[in-house]
Amino acid sequence: MNPFTDDPALSVGALGERRLIAHLRTWLGKATAPAPFGIGDDCAVLPASRSRRLLVTTDPVIYGRHFDSAVTPAAAAEKLLKRNLSDIAAMGGVPRSAVVSLALPRRVSIAWIGGFYRALGRCALRHGVTIAGGDIAESPEMLGAFLTLLGESSGPRVLTRRGAVAGDWIYASGELGGSILGKHCRFTPRLAEGRWLASRREVRCLMDLSDGLAKDILELTPAGTRPSLSAAALPISRAARTLARRDGRSALDHALSDGEDFELLFAVAARTDLTAFEKAWRARFPTKLTCLGHFARIGEPLADSIPLERYHGYEHLAGA
Amino acid sequence: MNPFTDDPALSVGALGERRLIAHLRTWLGKATAPAPFGIGDDCAVLPASRSRRLLVTTDPVIYGRHFDSAVTPAAAAEKLLKRNLSDIAAMGGVPRSAVVSLALPRRVSIAWIGGFYRALGRCALRHGVTIAGGDIAESPEMLGAFLTLLGESSGPRVLTRRGAVAGDWIYASGELGGSILGKHCRFTPRLAEGRWLASRREVRCLMDLSDGLAKDILELTPAGTRPSLSAAALPISRAARTLARRDGRSALDHALSDGEDFELLFAVAARTDLTAFEKAWRARFPTKLTCLGHFARIGEPLADSIPLERYHGYEHLAGA
Repeated sequence: MNPFTDDPALSVGALGERRLIAHLRTWLGKATAPAPFGIGDDCAVLPASRSRRLLVTTDPVIYGRHFDSAVTPAAAAEKLLKRNLSDIAAMGGVPRSAVVSLALPRRVSIAWIGGFYRALGRCALRHGVTIAGGDIAESPEMLGAFLTLLGESSGPRVLTRRGAVAGDWIYASGELGGSILGKHCRFTPRLAEGRWLASRREVRCLMDLSDGLAKDILELTPAGTRPSLSAAALPISRAARTLARRDGRSALDHALSDGEDFELLFAVAARTDLTAFEKAWRARFPTKLTCLGHFARIGEPLADSIPLERYHGYEHLAGA
Repeated sequence: MNPFTDDPALSVGALGERRLIAHLRTWLGKATAPAPFGIGDDCAVLPASRSRRLLVTTDPVIYGRHFDSAVTPAAAAEKLLKRNLSDIAAMGGVPRSAVVSLALPRRVSIAWIGGFYRALGRCALRHGVTIAGGDIAESPEMLGAFLTLLGESSGPRVLTRRGAVAGDWIYASGELGGSILGKHCRFTPRLAEGRWLASRREVRCLMDLSDGLAKDILELTPAGTRPSLSAAALPISRAARTLARRDGRSALDHALSDGEDFELLFAVAARTDLTAFEKAWRARFPTKLTCLGHFARIGEPLADSIPLERYHGYEHLAGA
């Protein structure tokens, strides 16, 4: 849906800020609360975290960059919240509250922003998130929504990107590649899986896949090692195979290089009983789980290992 | 300073994301921390609030809207953080951590973004704020920085916009109007004053002035009353008088209608010993304090009261 309208009467400019905020509140419904716990005061007041650690992450959706007119306002809103939920999942945390800062050109249609906020409210409710407040700024050109999500650790432990050592096994949830064919808006943030991983002592580190496995894996790779991944093991998505048929690149390339998988990537201690670990996962989650390989010491002979240096994940701001 | 460059070698596009983030970290210096307490993991991990209440606020600066090429990158960065600090001040809170989401066209110059982040770091350090993380998204057109600031209550009490009753006195800090001549970037968030007000039982409610007194006062006005403000009492700034000479509008109009004063506006219980209250303020703060009037019951005869309905504060998204 095209967010913009040429009919001034149908645009947010016709509402003005005060009425627009009243509408936003209605559209969000039970996902927000009266001020000062929701929209309407200088700050939103939140109950202090029940746990020892507070988590905070921020990610936007920008028109022309993260969504376009081919995407429904509901899908854009879900993508906005779920991108951030995936970051909370990637620390093993529980999401709590969000604020949304809108950059809004006047000629955005009321219908579009209504669809966006109604979906944001539904998605927030589904994940136990309160939309506690935000800001609307008129923007000359760009339509964007910038969400900051607060969460807390689910137990005593927060899983960061650090902690893997040589020999650790590398795992990923779900299937990889081809997200642009639909999954980039329709994914499921792996919150329950992330919480469970944070409770397992054999799990060393965790992140979510947003820029493609070939690039993201470097974030977990300990010094003195390189990731040894088996091409045969890689959980290549059907969408990656479809794209490969269309563009002549290999499905493996898509699985390694495409962004926005929003799956979990983590390392498990070398001595783990992998059969028992995988069985415990499968008893809890229908989500696919794949052992991709391990962190090999530099110099260790690698048979059937993907030459990762030939693949590139999504490069932000690449090229001037 | 013009944020954009036509020389690709001098632009952020020439750096790419990874090197840009390394630069941001350097520019922020001691205002940030290693991951996961600063930039570099999926979420930033913050220590849980020491107090009962967590405060959160979000405000951006957008090129062409909140700053332009006439403003230095340092002034734009200070405005970004201080707009949010003013919201924490307006609840009587203490600022703690911030995340910044950047919408960044490739042709923004490295020199501009460097000036922006160095100033952001200095301003954060000065106010005890940690820049805990953020996001960089390539934006086709718009340059904007969207900051979310977390704080906590300084004591058992958070001052909201609610609580005034008929007869309460109305006070403002500082001087009003004409902010566009410079104060909109060079103001002092009234954090110490806000904390002190939250500790005073006679103070009923508090907000910061961002859209002009004539509009903002309505946020504090209890049902069944109207604000009775004395024109003679109004602390009109020198900048408002300068603007009035230039544009033919009255200085009073500027003081009532101009946005971005970033002063505190609050109500004090009717029975307060105002002389003692003002003396206690002056013993602590050099900041000007003015009693503007009171909340009069509807029907109460008003002598020398400003007809506020004739003045309009800053209207966001006004006109289609």
